[in-house]
Amino acid sequence: MTDAETAQMEIAEHRKAIDDYDVQIVKLLNERAEHSLAIRALKPIVNMGLYDPAREEQIFQRLEGFNQGPMQNENLREIYASILKVMKEIPA
Amino acid sequence: MTDAETAQMEIAEHRKAIDDYDVQIVKLLNERAEHSLAIRALKPIVNMGLYDPAREEQIFQRLEGFNQGPMQNENLREIYASILKVMKEIPA
Repeated sequence: MTDAETAQMEIAEHRKAIDDYDVQIVKLLNERAEHSLAIRALKPIVNMGLYDPAREEQIFQRLEGFNQGPMQNENLREIYASILKVMKEIPA
Repeated sequence: MTDAETAQMEIAEHRKAIDDYDVQIVKLLNERAEHSLAIRALKPIVNMGLYDPAREEQIFQRLEGFNQGPMQNENLREIYASILKVMKEIPA
């Protein structure tokens, strides 16, 4: 096999691994979303607003505490900014 | 306990569950990132560019195929747009 053929095969293997990770990640994001929806339903009872900047900052700080890379903290913060935004937009 | 006290306690429990999900999600995102970095290193050998819109669209289509909610497909697409963007930006 040429180097290019070997590389092509390795790319296909990594993509297969990524596809498997995505199944797991989507499952966890949906389970996480169930808890976000439950919290959203409870917030009016305790007069809390939908957007809670202190809680969001607490989440970011925690993530950075256990992030082991290769994602940098700013990479993770960018993904989670999107996750937290979407969690507020999911139809109840 | 008042309704508000009960609700406050339930919110705290859901937040604890979310914190546990985030540990798992970050772990999987970092493992996924290892494969993205490996692919990035292989692409020059096969003359592939860093950005591959056909592969990205394939990823979106797959996600929508197994998404069971409560996230809507457009919610998931928004989160994954951010994940795929970040995966190209992680320092090698």
